[in-house]
Amino acid sequence: MSKHFEEELQDLHSDLLKMDAFAEEAIARSVEALREQDARLAQAVIEHDARIDALELVLDERCLDLIARHQPMAKDLRFIATAMRLNSELERIADLAVDIAQRVLELSGSPLLKPLVDIPKLAVLAQTMVKTSIDSFIVKDSELAKKVILMDSEADRLKRLIQNELIQEYIVKDGSVAPRAVPLLLVARHLERICDHATNIAEDVIYLVKGEVVKHHPERISDVKTYADQPSAVNPPEYA
Amino acid sequence: MSKHFEEELQDLHSDLLKMDAFAEEAIARSVEALREQDARLAQAVIEHDARIDALELVLDERCLDLIARHQPMAKDLRFIATAMRLNSELERIADLAVDIAQRVLELSGSPLLKPLVDIPKLAVLAQTMVKTSIDSFIVKDSELAKKVILMDSEADRLKRLIQNELIQEYIVKDGSVAPRAVPLLLVARHLERICDHATNIAEDVIYLVKGEVVKHHPERISDVKTYADQPSAVNPPEYA
Repeated sequence: MSKHFEEELQDLHSDLLKMDAFAEEAIARSVEALREQDARLAQAVIEHDARIDALELVLDERCLDLIARHQPMAKDLRFIATAMRLNSELERIADLAVDIAQRVLELSGSPLLKPLVDIPKLAVLAQTMVKTSIDSFIVKDSELAKKVILMDSEADRLKRLIQNELIQEYIVKDGSVAPRAVPLLLVARHLERICDHATNIAEDVIYLVKGEVVKHHPERISDVKTYADQPSAVNPPEYA
Repeated sequence: MSKHFEEELQDLHSDLLKMDAFAEEAIARSVEALREQDARLAQAVIEHDARIDALELVLDERCLDLIARHQPMAKDLRFIATAMRLNSELERIADLAVDIAQRVLELSGSPLLKPLVDIPKLAVLAQTMVKTSIDSFIVKDSELAKKVILMDSEADRLKRLIQNELIQEYIVKDGSVAPRAVPLLLVARHLERICDHATNIAEDVIYLVKGEVVKHHPERISDVKTYADQPSAVNPPEYA
Protein backbone atom coordinates (compact mmCIF):
# COMPACT_ATOMS: atom_id res chain seq x y z
CA MET A 1 0.00 0.00 0.00
CA SER A 2 1.51 3.35 -0.99
CA LYS A 3 2.04 6.00 1.64
CA HIS A 4 -0.13 8.32 -0.39
CA PHE A 5 -3.10 5.96 -0.24
CA GLU A 6 -2.71 5.53 3.52
CA GLU A 7 -2.76 9.29 3.93
CA GLU A 8 -5.90 9.54 1.82
CA LEU A 9 -7.60 6.93 4.00
CA GLN A 10 -6.61 8.95 7.08
CA ASP A 11 -8.08 12.11 5.52
CA LEU A 12 -11.26 10.21 4.74
CA HIS A 13 -11.47 9.08 8.36
CA SER A 14 -11.00 12.67 9.60
CA ASP A 15 -13.62 14.08 7.27
CA LEU A 16 -16.08 11.41 8.33
CA LEU A 17 -15.58 12.53 11.93
CA LYS A 18 -16.26 16.09 10.82
CA MET A 19 -19.48 14.87 9.20
CA ASP A 20 -20.35 13.16 12.47
CA ALA A 21 -19.62 16.34 14.46
CA PHE A 22 -21.98 18.26 12.15
CA ALA A 23 -24.72 15.64 12.53
CA GLU A 24 -24.41 15.44 16.33
CA GLU A 25 -24.41 19.24 16.54
CA ALA A 26 -27.56 19.36 14.41
CA ILE A 27 -29.36 16.94 16.74
CA ALA A 28 -28.21 18.78 19.86
CA ARG A 29 -29.29 22.15 18.51
CA SER A 30 -32.64 21.00 17.15
CA VAL A 31 -33.46 19.40 20.51
CA GLU A 32 -32.30 22.54 22.34
CA ALA A 33 -34.48 24.63 19.99
CA LEU A 34 -37.45 22.44 20.93
CA ARG A 35 -36.77 22.61 24.66
CA GLU A 36 -36.23 26.39 24.62
CA GLN A 37 -38.85 27.00 21.90
CA ASP A 38 -36.18 28.93 20.06
CA ALA A 39 -37.31 29.51 16.47
CA ARG A 40 -34.08 31.31 15.56
CA LEU A 41 -31.98 28.33 16.59
CA ALA A 42 -34.33 26.02 14.67
CA GLN A 43 -33.85 28.21 11.59
CA ALA A 44 -30.07 28.02 12.01
CA VAL A 45 -30.23 24.20 12.05
CA ILE A 46 -32.22 24.25 8.81
CA GLU A 47 -29.83 26.67 7.13
CA HIS A 48 -26.70 24.84 8.26
CA ASP A 49 -27.91 21.66 6.57
CA ALA A 50 -26.71 22.87 3.15
CA ARG A 51 -23.15 22.64 4.48
CA ILE A 52 -23.71 19.05 5.64
CA ASP A 53 -25.23 18.13 2.27
CA ALA A 54 -22.22 19.61 0.51
CA LEU A 55 -19.79 17.65 2.69
CA GLU A 56 -21.70 14.44 2.00
CA LEU A 57 -21.29 14.92 -1.75
CA VAL A 58 -17.59 15.73 -1.47
CA LEU A 59 -16.96 12.62 0.66
CA ASP A 60 -19.00 10.41 -1.63
CA GLU A 61 -17.11 11.51 -4.74
CA ARG A 62 -13.79 11.18 -2.97
CA CYS A 63 -14.51 7.58 -1.93
CA LEU A 64 -15.31 6.51 -5.48
CA ASP A 65 -12.28 8.34 -6.82
CA LEU A 66 -10.10 6.62 -4.22
CA ILE A 67 -11.37 3.21 -5.26
CA ALA A 68 -10.92 3.97 -8.97
CA ARG A 69 -7.36 5.27 -8.58
CA HIS A 70 -5.98 2.77 -6.08
CA GLN A 71 -7.84 -0.52 -6.70
CA PRO A 72 -7.74 -1.24 -2.97
CA MET A 73 -7.54 -4.79 -1.67
CA ALA A 74 -10.58 -6.33 0.04
CA LYS A 75 -9.85 -4.93 3.50
CA ASP A 76 -9.42 -1.33 2.34
CA LEU A 77 -12.28 -1.59 -0.09
CA ARG A 78 -14.48 -2.67 2.78
CA PHE A 79 -13.32 0.30 4.85
CA ILE A 80 -14.15 2.73 2.03
CA ALA A 81 -17.53 1.07 1.42
CA THR A 82 -18.30 1.45 5.13
CA ALA A 83 -17.21 5.09 5.04
CA MET A 84 -19.67 5.69 2.18
CA ARG A 85 -22.51 4.11 4.14
CA LEU A 86 -21.71 6.04 7.32
CA ASN A 87 -21.51 9.24 5.31
CA SER A 88 -25.00 8.62 3.95
CA GLU A 89 -26.41 7.67 7.37
CA LEU A 90 -24.97 10.81 8.97
CA GLU A 91 -26.47 12.99 6.27
CA ARG A 92 -29.85 11.39 6.88
CA ILE A 93 -29.45 11.93 10.63
CA ALA A 94 -28.78 15.60 9.97
CA ASP A 95 -31.90 15.70 7.74
CA LEU A 96 -33.95 14.37 10.65
CA ALA A 97 -32.55 17.13 12.87
CA VAL A 98 -33.84 19.52 10.20
CA ASP A 99 -37.23 17.79 10.41
CA ILE A 100 -37.24 18.37 14.18
CA ALA A 101 -36.29 22.02 13.64
CA GLN A 102 -39.22 22.37 11.23
CA ARG A 103 -41.59 21.02 13.89
CA VAL A 104 -40.17 23.64 16.29
CA LEU A 105 -41.08 26.34 13.77
CA GLU A 106 -44.60 24.89 13.45
CA LEU A 107 -44.94 24.98 17.23
CA SER A 108 -43.58 28.49 17.66
CA GLY A 109 -46.05 31.09 18.83
CA SER A 110 -48.13 28.75 20.98
CA PRO A 111 -47.26 27.45 24.43
CA LEU A 112 -45.94 23.88 24.73
CA LEU A 113 -48.80 21.43 25.21
CA LYS A 114 -47.15 19.80 28.22
CA PRO A 115 -43.82 19.72 30.00
CA LEU A 116 -41.58 17.48 27.92
CA VAL A 117 -40.51 14.35 29.80
CA ASP A 118 -40.16 11.38 27.48
CA ILE A 119 -39.13 13.35 24.39
CA PRO A 120 -35.93 14.60 26.12
CA LYS A 121 -35.29 11.00 27.24
CA LEU A 122 -35.62 9.80 23.65
CA ALA A 123 -33.43 12.69 22.48
CA VAL A 124 -30.68 11.71 24.94
CA LEU A 125 -30.97 8.09 23.79
CA ALA A 126 -30.72 9.16 20.13
CA GLN A 127 -27.64 11.26 20.84
CA THR A 128 -26.06 8.42 22.84
CA MET A 129 -26.76 5.90 20.08
CA VAL A 130 -25.25 8.11 17.36
CA LYS A 131 -22.19 8.92 19.47
CA THR A 132 -21.68 5.29 20.53
CA SER A 133 -22.10 3.99 16.99
CA ILE A 134 -19.42 6.39 15.73
CA ASP A 135 -17.18 5.54 18.72
CA SER A 136 -17.52 1.87 17.77
CA PHE A 137 -16.34 2.84 14.28
CA ILE A 138 -13.37 4.84 15.57
CA VAL A 139 -12.11 2.05 17.83
CA LYS A 140 -13.37 -0.74 15.51
CA ASP A 141 -15.22 -2.38 18.39
CA SER A 142 -18.03 -4.70 17.31
CA GLU A 143 -19.10 -5.33 20.93
CA LEU A 144 -19.70 -1.61 21.38
CA ALA A 145 -21.63 -1.60 18.10
CA LYS A 146 -23.82 -4.43 19.38
CA LYS A 147 -24.70 -2.31 22.42
CA VAL A 148 -26.11 0.32 20.08
CA ILE A 149 -28.26 -2.28 18.34
CA LEU A 150 -29.58 -3.43 21.71
CA MET A 151 -30.60 0.15 22.60
CA ASP A 152 -32.91 0.37 19.61
CA SER A 153 -35.81 -1.48 21.23
CA GLU A 154 -35.84 1.12 24.03
CA ALA A 155 -36.09 3.82 21.35
CA ASP A 156 -39.09 2.03 19.82
CA ARG A 157 -40.68 1.70 23.26
CA LEU A 158 -40.23 5.40 24.06
CA LYS A 159 -41.60 6.46 20.67
CA ARG A 160 -44.73 4.32 21.18
CA LEU A 161 -45.13 5.65 24.73
CA ILE A 162 -44.93 9.27 23.57
CA GLN A 163 -47.26 8.66 20.64
CA ASN A 164 -49.86 6.83 22.74
CA GLU A 165 -49.78 9.44 25.48
CA LEU A 166 -50.21 12.33 23.06
CA ILE A 167 -53.08 10.63 21.25
CA GLN A 168 -54.93 9.01 24.15
CA GLU A 169 -54.26 11.48 26.96
CA TYR A 170 -54.39 14.70 25.01
CA ILE A 171 -55.87 14.65 21.51
CA VAL A 172 -58.69 12.16 22.16
CA LYS A 173 -59.74 14.18 25.22
CA ASP A 174 -59.58 17.54 23.47
CA GLY A 175 -59.16 17.59 19.68
CA SER A 176 -58.39 21.30 19.66
CA VAL A 177 -54.87 20.58 20.97
CA ALA A 178 -54.02 18.61 17.82
CA PRO A 179 -52.04 21.42 16.12
CA ARG A 180 -49.78 21.50 19.20
CA ALA A 181 -49.72 17.71 19.74
CA VAL A 182 -49.11 16.40 16.22
CA PRO A 183 -45.73 18.16 15.80
CA LEU A 184 -44.57 16.63 19.13
CA LEU A 185 -45.73 13.23 17.93
CA LEU A 186 -43.69 13.74 14.75
CA VAL A 187 -40.63 14.81 16.77
CA ALA A 188 -40.79 11.45 18.56
CA ARG A 189 -40.85 9.71 15.18
CA HIS A 190 -37.91 11.77 13.88
CA LEU A 191 -35.88 10.92 17.00
CA GLU A 192 -36.71 7.25 16.70
CA ARG A 193 -35.55 7.29 13.08
CA ILE A 194 -32.27 8.87 14.18
CA CYS A 195 -31.91 5.82 16.45
CA ASP A 196 -32.59 3.58 13.43
CA HIS A 197 -29.78 5.25 11.50
CA ALA A 198 -27.42 4.86 14.48
CA THR A 199 -28.39 1.17 14.43
CA ASN A 200 -27.54 1.03 10.71
CA ILE A 201 -24.13 2.56 11.48
CA ALA A 202 -23.55 -0.03 14.21
CA GLU A 203 -24.48 -2.82 11.77
CA ASP A 204 -22.04 -1.40 9.22
CA VAL A 205 -19.30 -1.32 11.87
CA ILE A 206 -19.90 -4.98 12.71
CA TYR A 207 -19.69 -5.74 8.99
CA LEU A 208 -16.43 -3.81 8.79
CA VAL A 209 -14.90 -5.50 11.83
CA LYS A 210 -16.19 -9.01 11.31
CA GLY A 211 -16.68 -9.05 7.58
CA GLU A 212 -20.17 -10.22 8.23
CA VAL A 213 -23.26 -8.51 6.90
CA VAL A 214 -25.58 -7.75 9.81
CA LYS A 215 -27.36 -4.96 7.94
CA HIS A 216 -30.88 -6.04 7.02
CA HIS A 217 -30.13 -9.33 8.82
CA PRO A 218 -30.42 -8.51 12.50
CA GLU A 219 -31.18 -12.13 13.32
CA ARG A 220 -27.48 -12.81 12.79
CA ILE A 221 -26.73 -11.15 16.10
CA SER A 222 -27.75 -14.37 17.76
CA ASP A 223 -27.52 -13.03 21.31
CA VAL A 224 -29.94 -10.20 20.56
CA LYS A 225 -33.27 -11.57 21.69
CA THR A 226 -35.36 -8.58 20.70
CA TYR A 227 -34.94 -9.47 17.06
CA ALA A 228 -36.09 -13.06 17.39
CA ASP A 229 -39.56 -12.08 16.19
CA GLN A 230 -38.40 -11.08 12.72
CA PRO A 231 -38.55 -14.30 10.74
CA SER A 232 -39.19 -12.41 7.51
CA ALA A 233 -35.54 -11.50 7.07
CA VAL A 234 -34.56 -15.15 6.98
CA ASN A 235 -36.94 -16.42 4.41
CA PRO A 236 -38.85 -13.67 2.65
CA PRO A 237 -42.05 -15.02 1.15
CA GLU A 238 -43.20 -14.14 -2.33
CA TYR A 239 -46.31 -12.10 -2.79
CA ALA A 240 -49.25 -14.49 -2.83
CA MET B 1 -13.16 -0.88 -22.58
CA SER B 2 -13.21 -4.65 -22.27
CA LYS B 3 -16.27 -6.56 -23.44
CA HIS B 4 -16.52 -8.05 -20.00
CA PHE B 5 -16.82 -4.65 -18.33
CA GLU B 6 -19.51 -3.53 -20.79
CA GLU B 7 -21.49 -6.66 -20.01
CA GLU B 8 -21.15 -6.03 -16.30
CA LEU B 9 -22.46 -2.49 -16.74
CA GLN B 10 -25.42 -3.91 -18.67
CA ASP B 11 -26.12 -6.39 -15.88
CA LEU B 12 -25.95 -3.58 -13.35
CA HIS B 13 -28.45 -1.61 -15.40
CA SER B 14 -30.82 -4.61 -15.54
CA ASP B 15 -30.60 -5.27 -11.83
CA LEU B 16 -31.29 -1.64 -11.07
CA LEU B 17 -34.48 -1.93 -13.13
CA LYS B 18 -35.39 -5.02 -11.10
CA MET B 19 -34.84 -2.98 -7.94
CA ASP B 20 -37.12 -0.30 -9.41
CA ALA B 21 -39.80 -2.87 -10.27
CA PHE B 22 -39.70 -4.11 -6.65
CA ALA B 23 -39.98 -0.56 -5.30
CA GLU B 24 -42.83 0.42 -7.62
CA GLU B 25 -44.65 -2.81 -6.78
CA ALA B 26 -44.24 -2.09 -3.07
CA ILE B 27 -45.80 1.36 -3.45
CA ALA B 28 -48.67 0.06 -5.60
CA ARG B 29 -49.44 -2.76 -3.15
CA SER B 30 -49.21 -0.64 -0.02
CA VAL B 31 -51.56 1.92 -1.55
CA GLU B 32 -53.92 -0.84 -2.67
CA ALA B 33 -53.80 -2.30 0.85
CA LEU B 34 -54.80 1.09 2.23
CA ARG B 35 -57.61 1.59 -0.28
CA GLU B 36 -58.99 -1.93 0.23
CA GLN B 37 -58.12 -2.01 3.95
CA ASP B 38 -56.39 -5.29 3.24
CA ALA B 39 -54.21 -6.20 6.22
CA ARG B 40 -52.95 -9.38 4.54
CA LEU B 41 -51.64 -7.45 1.55
CA ALA B 42 -50.03 -4.91 3.89
CA GLN B 43 -48.33 -7.78 5.70
CA ALA B 44 -47.06 -9.14 2.37
CA VAL B 45 -45.49 -5.75 1.54
CA ILE B 46 -43.71 -5.74 4.90
CA GLU B 47 -42.43 -9.28 4.44
CA HIS B 48 -41.30 -8.74 0.86
CA ASP B 49 -39.05 -5.88 1.95
CA ALA B 50 -36.32 -8.30 3.10
CA ARG B 51 -35.86 -9.28 -0.55
CA ILE B 52 -35.47 -5.64 -1.60
CA ASP B 53 -32.97 -5.04 1.21
CA ALA B 54 -30.97 -8.05 0.09
CA LEU B 55 -30.91 -6.86 -3.52
CA GLU B 56 -29.74 -3.42 -2.42
CA LEU B 57 -26.76 -4.94 -0.61
CA VAL B 58 -25.85 -7.16 -3.56
CA LEU B 59 -25.97 -4.23 -5.99
CA ASP B 60 -23.99 -1.98 -3.66
CA GLU B 61 -21.20 -4.52 -3.25
CA ARG B 62 -21.15 -5.23 -6.97
CA CYS B 63 -20.73 -1.54 -7.85
CA LEU B 64 -17.72 -1.17 -5.56
CA ASP B 65 -16.21 -4.39 -6.83
CA LEU B 66 -16.70 -3.19 -10.42
CA ILE B 67 -14.87 0.05 -9.69
CA ALA B 68 -12.05 -1.71 -7.87
CA ARG B 69 -11.50 -4.28 -10.63
CA HIS B 70 -11.87 -2.08 -13.71
CA GLN B 71 -10.72 1.43 -12.68
CA PRO B 72 -13.36 2.92 -14.94
CA MET B 73 -12.81 6.24 -16.67
CA ALA B 74 -14.74 9.32 -15.52
CA LYS B 75 -17.86 8.65 -17.60
CA ASP B 76 -18.29 5.05 -16.45
CA LEU B 77 -17.35 5.91 -12.88
CA ARG B 78 -20.10 8.49 -12.92
CA PHE B 79 -22.59 5.93 -14.22
CA ILE B 80 -21.70 3.48 -11.44
CA ALA B 81 -21.84 6.23 -8.82
CA THR B 82 -25.31 7.15 -10.07
CA ALA B 83 -26.37 3.50 -9.99
CA MET B 84 -25.31 3.34 -6.35
CA ARG B 85 -27.33 6.42 -5.47
CA LEU B 86 -30.41 5.19 -7.34
CA ASN B 87 -30.09 1.83 -5.63
CA SER B 88 -30.13 3.53 -2.23
CA GLU B 89 -33.05 5.81 -3.16
CA LEU B 90 -35.12 2.85 -4.39
CA GLU B 91 -34.46 0.93 -1.19
CA ARG B 92 -35.65 3.93 0.82
CA ILE B 93 -38.74 4.22 -1.37
CA ALA B 94 -39.53 0.58 -0.64
CA ASP B 95 -39.02 1.29 3.08
CA LEU B 96 -41.62 4.04 2.86
CA ALA B 97 -44.03 1.60 1.23
CA VAL B 98 -43.42 -0.59 4.30
CA ASP B 99 -44.20 2.42 6.49
CA ILE B 100 -47.50 2.86 4.63
CA ALA B 101 -48.26 -0.86 5.06
CA GLN B 102 -47.65 -0.50 8.81
CA ARG B 103 -50.15 2.37 8.95
CA VAL B 104 -52.66 0.07 7.18
CA LEU B 105 -52.15 -2.50 9.94
CA GLU B 106 -52.68 0.19 12.60
CA LEU B 107 -55.91 1.21 10.88
CA SER B 108 -57.22 -2.31 10.41
CA GLY B 109 -60.28 -3.23 12.42
CA SER B 110 -61.85 0.23 12.38
CA PRO B 111 -63.73 1.84 9.52
CA LEU B 112 -61.90 4.45 7.40
CA LEU B 113 -62.37 7.92 8.86
CA LYS B 114 -63.46 9.38 5.53
CA PRO B 115 -63.54 8.46 1.86
CA LEU B 116 -60.00 8.92 0.59
CA VAL B 117 -59.73 11.63 -2.04
CA ASP B 118 -56.43 13.50 -1.84
CA ILE B 119 -54.37 10.57 -0.53
CA PRO B 120 -55.04 8.55 -3.73
CA LYS B 121 -54.13 11.67 -5.75
CA LEU B 122 -50.84 11.97 -3.87
CA ALA B 123 -50.26 8.22 -4.29
CA VAL B 124 -50.71 8.49 -8.07
CA LEU B 125 -48.35 11.48 -8.12
CA ALA B 126 -45.76 9.53 -6.11
CA GLN B 127 -46.00 6.56 -8.45
CA THR B 128 -45.75 8.84 -11.50
CA MET B 129 -42.72 10.64 -10.10
CA VAL B 130 -40.87 7.40 -9.31
CA LYS B 131 -41.69 5.92 -12.71
CA THR B 132 -40.78 9.09 -14.60
CA SER B 133 -37.52 9.53 -12.68
CA ILE B 134 -36.47 5.98 -13.59
CA ASP B 135 -37.61 6.49 -17.20
CA SER B 136 -35.39 9.58 -17.35
CA PHE B 137 -32.53 7.37 -16.19
CA ILE B 138 -33.26 4.68 -18.77
CA VAL B 139 -33.34 7.12 -21.69
CA LYS B 140 -30.77 9.50 -20.10
CA ASP B 141 -33.13 12.44 -20.58
CA SER B 142 -32.39 15.40 -18.32
CA GLU B 143 -35.48 17.30 -19.53
CA LEU B 144 -37.69 14.44 -18.38
CA ALA B 145 -35.81 14.45 -15.06
CA LYS B 146 -36.50 18.18 -14.66
CA LYS B 147 -40.21 17.48 -15.04
CA VAL B 148 -40.04 15.21 -12.00
CA ILE B 149 -38.36 17.96 -9.98
CA LEU B 150 -41.15 20.37 -10.99
CA MET B 151 -43.81 17.92 -9.75
CA ASP B 152 -42.40 17.97 -6.23
CA SER B 153 -44.09 21.23 -5.22
CA GLU B 154 -47.48 19.68 -6.04
CA ALA B 155 -46.58 16.78 -3.75
CA ASP B 156 -45.78 19.24 -0.95
CA ARG B 157 -49.05 21.07 -1.58
CA LEU B 158 -51.11 17.86 -1.44
CA LYS B 159 -49.39 16.71 1.73
CA ARG B 160 -50.12 20.02 3.47
CA LEU B 161 -53.72 19.92 2.22
CA ILE B 162 -54.26 16.40 3.59
CA GLN B 163 -52.58 17.21 6.89
CA ASN B 164 -54.52 20.44 7.41
CA GLU B 165 -57.83 18.83 6.52
CA LEU B 166 -57.28 15.90 8.90
CA ILE B 167 -56.24 18.16 11.76
CA GLN B 168 -58.63 21.09 11.30
CA GLU B 169 -61.71 19.35 9.88
CA TYR B 170 -61.55 16.11 11.81
CA ILE B 171 -59.29 15.94 14.87
CA VAL B 172 -59.89 19.46 16.19
CA LYS B 173 -63.66 18.92 15.91
CA ASP B 174 -63.60 15.49 17.53
CA GLY B 175 -60.42 14.35 19.21
CA SER B 176 -61.69 10.78 19.55
CA VAL B 177 -61.03 10.22 15.82
CA ALA B 178 -57.29 10.79 16.33
CA PRO B 179 -56.34 7.06 16.33
CA ARG B 180 -57.96 6.78 12.89
CA ALA B 181 -56.73 10.18 11.59
CA VAL B 182 -53.08 10.18 12.66
CA PRO B 183 -52.14 7.10 10.58
CA LEU B 184 -53.68 8.76 7.50
CA LEU B 185 -51.74 11.91 8.22
CA LEU B 186 -48.57 9.80 8.39
CA VAL B 187 -49.43 8.05 5.11
CA ALA B 188 -49.51 11.48 3.45
CA ARG B 189 -46.06 12.18 4.87
CA HIS B 190 -44.72 8.81 3.69
CA LEU B 191 -46.04 9.45 0.18
CA GLU B 192 -44.56 12.92 0.11
CA ARG B 193 -41.19 11.48 1.10
CA ILE B 194 -41.43 8.98 -1.74
CA CYS B 195 -41.81 12.02 -4.02
CA ASP B 196 -38.69 13.52 -2.40
CA HIS B 197 -36.72 10.37 -3.23
CA ALA B 198 -38.00 10.45 -6.84
CA THR B 199 -36.76 14.05 -6.94
CA ASN B 200 -33.36 12.89 -5.69
CA ILE B 201 -33.27 10.28 -8.46
CA ALA B 202 -34.13 12.95 -11.04
CA GLU B 203 -31.34 15.16 -9.68
CA ASP B 204 -28.91 12.26 -9.93
CA VAL B 205 -29.97 11.65 -13.55
CA ILE B 206 -29.30 15.30 -14.43
CA TYR B 207 -25.89 14.94 -12.80
CA LEU B 208 -25.27 11.82 -14.84
CA VAL B 209 -26.34 13.40 -18.12
CA LYS B 210 -24.93 16.88 -17.66
CA GLY B 211 -22.10 16.20 -15.26
CA GLU B 212 -23.56 18.82 -13.01
CA VAL B 213 -24.47 18.31 -9.38
CA VAL B 214 -28.07 19.39 -8.90
CA LYS B 215 -28.51 17.29 -5.76
CA HIS B 216 -28.70 19.53 -2.71
CA HIS B 217 -28.41 22.51 -5.09
CA PRO B 218 -31.86 22.84 -6.65
CA GLU B 219 -31.25 26.51 -7.43
CA ARG B 220 -29.00 25.32 -10.26
CA ILE B 221 -32.06 24.38 -12.26
CA SER B 222 -32.38 28.01 -13.19
CA ASP B 223 -35.69 27.60 -14.96
CA VAL B 224 -37.35 26.00 -11.94
CA LYS B 225 -38.99 28.96 -10.25
CA THR B 226 -40.44 27.02 -7.33
CA TYR B 227 -36.99 26.69 -5.83
CA ALA B 228 -36.15 30.39 -6.01
CA ASP B 229 -37.11 30.78 -2.36
CA GLN B 230 -34.31 28.56 -1.08
CA PRO B 231 -31.38 30.95 -0.69
CA SER B 232 -29.94 28.84 2.11
CA ALA B 233 -28.49 26.33 -0.33
CA VAL B 234 -26.38 29.01 -1.99
CA ASN B 235 -24.70 30.54 0.98
CA PRO B 236 -25.17 28.56 4.16
CA PRO B 237 -24.57 30.77 7.18
CA GLU B 238 -22.59 29.59 10.17
CA TYR B 239 -24.33 29.03 13.45
CA ALA B 240 -24.39 32.35 15.29
